[in-house]
Amino acid sequence: MTHAAHIAHLTHASIELMDERDPLADLREQFIIPGGVIYLDGNSLGALPKSVPARMKQAIEQEWGIGLIRSWNDADWYLAPQRVGALIAGLIGAQPTEVIVCDSTSVNVFKVLVAACRMRPDRSVIVSERGNFPTNAYITAEVARLMGKTVVFVEPSEVDDAIESAGDDLVAVQLTEVNFKTASRYDMAAITERVHALGGCVVWDLCHSAGVLPVDLNGCDVDFAVGCTYKYLNGGPGSPAFLFAAERHLHQVDQPLPGWHGHARPFEFVQDYEPDPGIARMLTGTASQLGLLALEAALGVFAGLDMHVVRAKSVALTGLFISLVDTELAEFGFTVESPRDGTVRGSHVSLAHEHAYAITQALIARGVIGDFRAPNLLRFGFAPLYLRYGDVWNAVAIMRNVMTTAAWDAPEFLAKKAVT
Amino acid sequence: MTHAAHIAHLTHASIELMDERDPLADLREQFIIPGGVIYLDGNSLGALPKSVPARMKQAIEQEWGIGLIRSWNDADWYLAPQRVGALIAGLIGAQPTEVIVCDSTSVNVFKVLVAACRMRPDRSVIVSERGNFPTNAYITAEVARLMGKTVVFVEPSEVDDAIESAGDDLVAVQLTEVNFKTASRYDMAAITERVHALGGCVVWDLCHSAGVLPVDLNGCDVDFAVGCTYKYLNGGPGSPAFLFAAERHLHQVDQPLPGWHGHARPFEFVQDYEPDPGIARMLTGTASQLGLLALEAALGVFAGLDMHVVRAKSVALTGLFISLVDTELAEFGFTVESPRDGTVRGSHVSLAHEHAYAITQALIARGVIGDFRAPNLLRFGFAPLYLRYGDVWNAVAIMRNVMTTAAWDAPEFLAKKAVT
Repeated sequence: MTHAAHIAHLTHASIELMDERDPLADLREQFIIPGGVIYLDGNSLGALPKSVPARMKQAIEQEWGIGLIRSWNDADWYLAPQRVGALIAGLIGAQPTEVIVCDSTSVNVFKVLVAACRMRPDRSVIVSERGNFPTNAYITAEVARLMGKTVVFVEPSEVDDAIESAGDDLVAVQLTEVNFKTASRYDMAAITERVHALGGCVVWDLCHSAGVLPVDLNGCDVDFAVGCTYKYLNGGPGSPAFLFAAERHLHQVDQPLPGWHGHARPFEFVQDYEPDPGIARMLTGTASQLGLLALEAALGVFAGLDMHVVRAKSVALTGLFISLVDTELAEFGFTVESPRDGTVRGSHVSLAHEHAYAITQALIARGVIGDFRAPNLLRFGFAPLYLRYGDVWNAVAIMRNVMTTAAWDAPEFLAKKAVT
Repeated sequence: MTHAAHIAHLTHASIELMDERDPLADLREQFIIPGGVIYLDGNSLGALPKSVPARMKQAIEQEWGIGLIRSWNDADWYLAPQRVGALIAGLIGAQPTEVIVCDSTSVNVFKVLVAACRMRPDRSVIVSERGNFPTNAYITAEVARLMGKTVVFVEPSEVDDAIESAGDDLVAVQLTEVNFKTASRYDMAAITERVHALGGCVVWDLCHSAGVLPVDLNGCDVDFAVGCTYKYLNGGPGSPAFLFAAERHLHQVDQPLPGWHGHARPFEFVQDYEPDPGIARMLTGTASQLGLLALEAALGVFAGLDMHVVRAKSVALTGLFISLVDTELAEFGFTVESPRDGTVRGSHVSLAHEHAYAITQALIARGVIGDFRAPNLLRFGFAPLYLRYGDVWNAVAIMRNVMTTAAWDAPEFLAKKAVT
């Protein structure tokens, strides 16, 4: 390392020691990590668990190819949404019967938010965050339109006041625990308690929480939650989302996409809808089996893991990155846009820079894969199951090199791609 | 064949000749068909095209495993919903820019039916069929509830009258072209014309049409259509559904699940929703990539196919089956519940029988795979791309044997399975 002089309290040797002492170090062997890549985008698409290819070969060639329609029974396809939901329940503080895997996060936000409106028919205000992931804003606004409610979008610092202002007119609060840009984390327990004190419901989005933070839905008395499975849960591109509905609500949940798989007796093909008594009432159409089965195999890496240990490594990785950015990249104009307090930070770190897009592309070309978030953020995710402290060290060294040589200032890095 | 004496005008030799002269005979080689199986359930889950396993291995191991997040650009994941939609468009008489692949059929019915309601805000009646596939009934009733409309569910023979009765209060007609039980086929052109004459919209469900009938959406001036891809399109278990919206409507389609992938500029992450100008506005959340890529590979078998040739074989296969049921199984109490007129029959045939469930199970145990539809139907699908006339002959021979020996009257065939 030629940049050792820039580092105050961290040395390459100390980093090596952190990796040696890492209780999760062995997990990296369960993933495919391509050579020459430092993958800092597990918060967007998790790496491929090694268990997945063989499972998918079996699912496609044996279960589909040979079993054909029989596999809905013989290979237990039919109960996959519940079965995979139960695996995720264990990671988010829910009962196995409270979580189901289906559809996309957007569709699931729609289901639970309409259901929440129907539980509070005489109230009119939904509170959400202006900087929430856009799909939450779009779906929440649409739910309000359909149900005749009003959405108040506020800054994170104004959420408490907005809840108090809504008072006994509060229907629900829809927030994402960890912000997709800043990684700032809400206090789920405190906000949920405040909302309940006013008689409202909470709908928590766990997209950037599940699989990397110890979430305790029932401990926080949460009403509804949703989340995607292709980030820290490593389910693969576009893997189906999950949905949590608290047991105490299930018997009365009245969701707006009552497809046949949510029926109490779907294979009787009756004319009138009667919801399943349990979590299956949140289903709509036929489950995406290939996505479900890949996700189920991927979740095997979480067996027996203590999420507090995962969290501790996550905080250490992001903290190390911020320290190295401070010491190694001080002169290049980056601003840390994520909380410096690890307790309120998720597992990614965003840096603002006027040339964020081109720098991101230049880093990707050098094997340091993060992503760009408009208008000016470089976003780096730190997945504790397969990242090493040494990866963080090396990533910053490459960033320093890219900035020192202005390697990002080339036409190929300035031209925008469809997905950034 | 020991039952030759029962056959009047059909002989084994004539069946062999039909297979020899079949212009689609070579297509069977493009599918995995397990030994010992006569697969008469391609109307529920299509057989596995041989192209799929290798494509999925590449998608999982290379695109996900090595490409990681880069594959959204580099492997063109991002445009898969449009790209696969364009392939399906060619099979249903649509422009490539009018079809997109996403979500489930149920979710897509919801999207287009709400959109139709918003196009006819001052009207109040939706017409649908009482015997429609249940998910259509459930979703249609829910749309009516959310949008303040009334649904009139009628028998197929009453559809025309119900449309006339609704008159200038008609919002939309939601029908499935080919009934999932009887295989009875509506006259799409005539009904659509009648609905348009009254100023209403049509929402056609093509689940039992796409890939087996020559559908002509634009020739019929259809407004909206949806359908699944795991039946005759062979996309695999739970593969994503398709959605058609006529070009003339697209600029004004206002759908109720406006997720980020439907936004005009999703990667700018702006707070306010602005729909994509084209068919992508029908998208909601992140696409199910594994399902999309399997489907894309599966659709390769349709390249260059003339759907009228496929239809001719479909009519011949179902007609042969009905003839053989008439001659071979006359004494066993089956009633043909599908139209005998091939022009108004889809590609499956349903037989009523008081022991339908047990007989279906006994046939499956003998390798003749059909399915049971409550309360008393045996349903047999005839996929022209991989079924031979000889398969139909052999299936009926096995049915005769099962009935003659009463092999179905055993405990293992009487016990119900979860999915039937």
